[in-house]
Amino acid sequence: MEIKFSDRANGLKASEIRELLKLTQRPEVISFAGGLPAPELFPIEQLKEVTTKVLDEQGAQSLQYSTTEGYLPLREIIVNERMAKNGVKTTVDNILVVSGSQQALEFSAKLFVNKGDVIICESPSYLGALNAFKAYEPEFVEIPMDDDGMEVDKLEEALKNNNNVKMIYTIPDFQNPSGKTMSIERRKRIAELAAEYKVPVIEDSPYGELIFEGKPYPCIKSFDKAGYVVTLGTFSKTFCPGLRLGWICAEEEILKKYVMIKQGADLQSNTFTQMIAARFMQEHNLDEHINKIIEVYRKRRDLMLESMEKYFPKEVTFTYPKGGLFTWVNLKEGIDAAEVNKEALKQNVAFVPGGSFYPNGGNKNHFRLNYSNMSEEKIVEGIKRLGEVLKKFY
Amino acid sequence: MEIKFSDRANGLKASEIRELLKLTQRPEVISFAGGLPAPELFPIEQLKEVTTKVLDEQGAQSLQYSTTEGYLPLREIIVNERMAKNGVKTTVDNILVVSGSQQALEFSAKLFVNKGDVIICESPSYLGALNAFKAYEPEFVEIPMDDDGMEVDKLEEALKNNNNVKMIYTIPDFQNPSGKTMSIERRKRIAELAAEYKVPVIEDSPYGELIFEGKPYPCIKSFDKAGYVVTLGTFSKTFCPGLRLGWICAEEEILKKYVMIKQGADLQSNTFTQMIAARFMQEHNLDEHINKIIEVYRKRRDLMLESMEKYFPKEVTFTYPKGGLFTWVNLKEGIDAAEVNKEALKQNVAFVPGGSFYPNGGNKNHFRLNYSNMSEEKIVEGIKRLGEVLKKFY
Repeated sequence: MEIKFSDRANGLKASEIRELLKLTQRPEVISFAGGLPAPELFPIEQLKEVTTKVLDEQGAQSLQYSTTEGYLPLREIIVNERMAKNGVKTTVDNILVVSGSQQALEFSAKLFVNKGDVIICESPSYLGALNAFKAYEPEFVEIPMDDDGMEVDKLEEALKNNNNVKMIYTIPDFQNPSGKTMSIERRKRIAELAAEYKVPVIEDSPYGELIFEGKPYPCIKSFDKAGYVVTLGTFSKTFCPGLRLGWICAEEEILKKYVMIKQGADLQSNTFTQMIAARFMQEHNLDEHINKIIEVYRKRRDLMLESMEKYFPKEVTFTYPKGGLFTWVNLKEGIDAAEVNKEALKQNVAFVPGGSFYPNGGNKNHFRLNYSNMSEEKIVEGIKRLGEVLKKFY
Repeated sequence: MEIKFSDRANGLKASEIRELLKLTQRPEVISFAGGLPAPELFPIEQLKEVTTKVLDEQGAQSLQYSTTEGYLPLREIIVNERMAKNGVKTTVDNILVVSGSQQALEFSAKLFVNKGDVIICESPSYLGALNAFKAYEPEFVEIPMDDDGMEVDKLEEALKNNNNVKMIYTIPDFQNPSGKTMSIERRKRIAELAAEYKVPVIEDSPYGELIFEGKPYPCIKSFDKAGYVVTLGTFSKTFCPGLRLGWICAEEEILKKYVMIKQGADLQSNTFTQMIAARFMQEHNLDEHINKIIEVYRKRRDLMLESMEKYFPKEVTFTYPKGGLFTWVNLKEGIDAAEVNKEALKQNVAFVPGGSFYPNGGNKNHFRLNYSNMSEEKIVEGIKRLGEVLKKFY
């Protein structure tokens, strides 16, 4: 067979992390590699109840085609509960339900980016987003981060120096992979810069509600007077990822285009799981459920960081995330985290080497650790083994 | 707001049919416009049973992230039951589960088509596919159809005359919108031409199992020795569209690329509804369920065609579909079916005017009628009213 793929498809590479995640599925592996929620917290009994009600009372509707925009009661819940909690006043006309926020990322590049256009992102940034964007053949400009997130002065410089920036991509809360959170001042400034340079900001906020300490920071969208900020939300981290439900919140003019893209891409999100999720949130309190998740994850974070202090070489530094799923580890220059991972896998411990989080390459001396998916016992044991491995490199 | 969209997004237009379908949601409208299955046939009680079992026995797994390729037992069922029934011997390594076959259509253009490349399709063709393809800025070459489907001599000519054909798109069974079925000889010939010209064939088969008379025709893929045929299947018409489950069957080299596209597009299909569908098909007989659908749809088709004979002006011709959901109506040149539809809507009857099914325009003197979604009574009443409207145009 001699088949011709499109240029964009020729550029696609199997994600390293995907291959790695296959390895980590063996039960003996202590995996800090994925970004999976703790499955023991899924509200299975309550879901059984509401699913039966949906099938009893709205059976035919729940199994039929429905609107591209999404199930209206679910969009109302997103407006009145999730977006309101994040400081954003909006309406259902600004909400499109998507099949997880990964879909919203792919749509964003499709909507805004021509071949060769510039996407500005944090350095490092979420590799799943970078891979989705790459299909539209952009250039990436990476903006460094400090403890307050993306450095906005450097963002402004990049906007000045590149006349074909079509999208600014940021994860302001407990960033993937760095675990860092953007300050309120910078959130305001980014909203201003977006309006000034007429460039959309894609604000990806999958972890914003998983806050272990301190008050929640308002979304960048809450400072958006001109309409250039698009906020992406998801129920994958606060409810159940297997139901594939996320959303896009954008000005109507922009949202209408996303709706047309969604129509072509897969007609609509799953009717059945949209109705189940809406019913769950009508009859149960999602905030209470989120509080349970937070308690468990906070303990796991604490235990992971304490164990890292105890077992890692003193020269190794890492972030202290105030929420979310990840901490980010910095090794001294010259150490390749992929090599460390190979050694760690021999001890049945896995993580994601940092290189893939930098769209323009380099920066191999970092790695990402996830603490949401392993038991407390496994976290201590895994970090201990990883400490032993790291000592060989120092 | 002065926001710049990508070129592909600037080219997107709201689908006419979508706007029309909104109008037809009023309960008093007799709608032959959509392509919706009959909701009264959804197996709600059986789904309640299997959903409870899935949540009881595999609850955490069904709500968690899972593999991009899809749930293995569902892929096995697709291989051993659906594809085998269509005459295709294949393996799970050739199957990717997608969120409805609309997603597979969008992926196909993403995978094969650069801007300006040629897509060959039937004239007319499924407008949802055409809209999905248009986002990748192709040229379309339309091949006329006779009673045996796409005219393969003209297909061969088109392949000879265009050196940048990247994809042949066909719906061989009970085509949407024409209701026509491709002969076995032509299926063989298309598989040969694909290999000769090294161009992939996207064989879209959503209705192939809804056969009212005669034997099933084997898939084009069953004649594919060289690996250039990609077959798209779906459970939307034989089971429940709200669960959003379809599949791609392709050679491994091609399927791997589709998997990477899926990974970027939305990570994976819905874990929960994949497991429910698999469990349903393990514990119940989908073929028996399909037979029930066939009986109901056959009656509705018969009634619609009989009523058309009786109430339509004699000059109006239409296809006699041997399965599927649609018949296709031909008016005399010069009558615009969109104008007829406006008049019909005043009598609370709706259909889809044919123009949108031709990617290069023209051909306004046709329209599509769906018979799967309305009761027998409404079919007779609707066609009667439509006959009255048509008489004004003749």
